[in-house]
Amino acid sequence: MSNSLGRHVLAEIHGCSFDVLNDREKVEAIMVNAALETGAEVREVVFHKFSPQGISGVVVISESHLAIHTWPELGYAAFDVFTCGDRVNPWDACNYVSEKFQAGHMTAREVKRGTIEVSKEAVNL
Amino acid sequence: MSNSLGRHVLAEIHGCSFDVLNDREKVEAIMVNAALETGAEVREVVFHKFSPQGISGVVVISESHLAIHTWPELGYAAFDVFTCGDRVNPWDACNYVSEKFQAGHMTAREVKRGTIEVSKEAVNL
Repeated sequence: MSNSLGRHVLAEIHGCSFDVLNDREKVEAIMVNAALETGAEVREVVFHKFSPQGISGVVVISESHLAIHTWPELGYAAFDVFTCGDRVNPWDACNYVSEKFQAGHMTAREVKRGTIEVSKEAVNL
Repeated sequence: MSNSLGRHVLAEIHGCSFDVLNDREKVEAIMVNAALETGAEVREVVFHKFSPQGISGVVVISESHLAIHTWPELGYAAFDVFTCGDRVNPWDACNYVSEKFQAGHMTAREVKRGTIEVSKEAVNL
């Protein structure tokens, strides 16, 4: 039996709006709001715009982080969200970002992070 | 056949030094140096120390990002590094961080990000 410290969801978001994916202020606002919508506590926010296009940015939250990298020319964004504890659901952030990017479709996978082994004996106590 | 825009390595680093994992300046320096050691270009750096313990931080690089979350009391750090292009090898950053954290062991997996389908016809041209 095992338990994990965190949940890390990696999302491939396709068919997004070029104008949203290439706008630093919009991407930053969507990412911060994604954190807040899930009930996370925002600690640090950092975003960078590349030339000629593309945005990278991260929102550090008390519960871990949200990160984004956009390829406006491909309508694609690579999003990941790592959350600790049971209070915040990383999938809520995924769905929020996908909707705000006006995505055509999203595929995502969840990876358990920091799996701590719990012995059967300990569980039966 | 498919190709991907990026490589995302998620590493579980166990048996680390408490003193390193709980020192914001040390963790930040190790993360920045991990980026530089792989030949990445550092764009933004943001770190946060939690009370009573634990560090979260991110280094945004031109090639995407490196992120860390530490649990000093467990000797555990959750590290991930996302790189685009062929110039930077994300595994070099993993191995560097693991060594500097004086880790007992590390397990890691690589996930391809932004997989772009290439038709067989196009490849055969």
